[in-house]
Amino acid sequence: MKRWLVLVHGGAGEIGELSPAQEHSYRRQLRRAVEQAAAILDSGGRSLEAVTAAVQALEECALFNAGRGSVRNRQGIVEMDAAVMDGASRRAGAVAAVRSLRNPVLAARLVAERSPHVLLVADGAEAFAVSHGAVRVTPEYFTSSYFGSAEDTVGAVALDVEGNLAAATSTGGTAGKLPGRVGDSPLIGAGTYADNRSCAVSTTGTGEHFIRTVAAYSIHARLLWGRLSLEEAARQVLQEIDALGGTGGLIALDAAGNAVALCTSPGMYRAMASSDGRILTAIWREEPWQES
Amino acid sequence: MKRWLVLVHGGAGEIGELSPAQEHSYRRQLRRAVEQAAAILDSGGRSLEAVTAAVQALEECALFNAGRGSVRNRQGIVEMDAAVMDGASRRAGAVAAVRSLRNPVLAARLVAERSPHVLLVADGAEAFAVSHGAVRVTPEYFTSSYFGSAEDTVGAVALDVEGNLAAATSTGGTAGKLPGRVGDSPLIGAGTYADNRSCAVSTTGTGEHFIRTVAAYSIHARLLWGRLSLEEAARQVLQEIDALGGTGGLIALDAAGNAVALCTSPGMYRAMASSDGRILTAIWREEPWQES
Repeated sequence: MKRWLVLVHGGAGEIGELSPAQEHSYRRQLRRAVEQAAAILDSGGRSLEAVTAAVQALEECALFNAGRGSVRNRQGIVEMDAAVMDGASRRAGAVAAVRSLRNPVLAARLVAERSPHVLLVADGAEAFAVSHGAVRVTPEYFTSSYFGSAEDTVGAVALDVEGNLAAATSTGGTAGKLPGRVGDSPLIGAGTYADNRSCAVSTTGTGEHFIRTVAAYSIHARLLWGRLSLEEAARQVLQEIDALGGTGGLIALDAAGNAVALCTSPGMYRAMASSDGRILTAIWREEPWQES
Repeated sequence: MKRWLVLVHGGAGEIGELSPAQEHSYRRQLRRAVEQAAAILDSGGRSLEAVTAAVQALEECALFNAGRGSVRNRQGIVEMDAAVMDGASRRAGAVAAVRSLRNPVLAARLVAERSPHVLLVADGAEAFAVSHGAVRVTPEYFTSSYFGSAEDTVGAVALDVEGNLAAATSTGGTAGKLPGRVGDSPLIGAGTYADNRSCAVSTTGTGEHFIRTVAAYSIHARLLWGRLSLEEAARQVLQEIDALGGTGGLIALDAAGNAVALCTSPGMYRAMASSDGRILTAIWREEPWQES
């Protein structure tokens, strides 16, 4: 039986004190998301389907800053970004600054598969997605009254039994951002990248720094041309972001099935499932993976 | 006296037969744009100012697909994208899907210098730029009735006497594109990248392929980790784009003052000026630089 693997994250950030009940909620939702992906991978499904399903599950959950739980911009309005990338074909799709779509990650899939484009934004993105069946919601759907400074995001990376890598990322962006602001999540190479030759990456953090360092693709570059290990490459890019004054984290998988989940912030919600049957979660930066 | 150098492009594409008068017009406008940048660099000005001035000049000229001459989307509406990046600080700014700004490249500068963000899109980008003094125009300002399939773009890269690199790119995108479509030009690492450690790059072509290959940053990566020459790196990335079915070109400068202007399409409008006082132009793929 061939090996499969999936990692998800629910954002990196300060993560204040969590009550036992809160911590349990986060771990349960992370596990549910990764189980969605695991079910697909375990039955031989594609990594692209798996990452989409995991991110969709996190978008449906109000605990995370993506989809339903998205934070609000300076005008109090939710504007969401998402991207998907298939490492086999390097086909990619993304939407940004969309306000009324229930699942931005599904809209990103539609852009990848039903349009000649990679990135659609704002009203044009919504109109395209709705014309292809995407579900629209009213502003009341979004639960967040959150106006803080953290930038969470959700994402997933997966390796399927055929050896194909994929990545997906979705976010409500920075709370209090300017209207029309687009972060790294929907930008191929910045917040999301997948390439069967190297790795699949989804990032979270102070998005502008991840754009300026082209963070996700720079891991690919460090593997392909720098001959670094996945973990060395991931540490280097987080150091580079730190040197520019940024913070955050990332999940990444390489084609050999090595996995990393690293952050420079105090914590990053994360979970992992693999063909050995284990489901693991972690929240704090130095916390080892735990079965929970 | 220290060396400075600037390259501009006015888009790569099919470029049908040009009458002598047409060819003269294109060369004259390219020369004028590069002269704007040369005047800044020759008086000790910054490369970021030089690339902004060159791109602004090309945006003002109706011959090229950027600013005034921007092509129209599927609804007959102009939607423009632009980006700037400073290689010294790796600060960057960009706007996308803006409809009413006279000079998108100036709006990109405002995002870089007056906001905490890198990329603003659509109405939010316009509102931000106008609130910081950007000039708005009515739809009649745009001269193009063009609905073809070419994707031109304008761009500039420069090295100033202090050794700082910068890049800027501006475009009306693909004619007949979906509303809200964003190409590679405003995406840091795809169509625009500058880094004093390596190079400055501005691309033009079938934008989606340049996004999927993270084209501009991949030249940086091939220099920094692959130890390739600028020309080898540029050829490799254009080959990679060709292998995915794409076409186009790019201009790039490295920190040592090496310059390349390459395309896989039949032509790319381009010009160069340097501290040796020469101003050169070229249009066809294999055409040597000429003083004209």
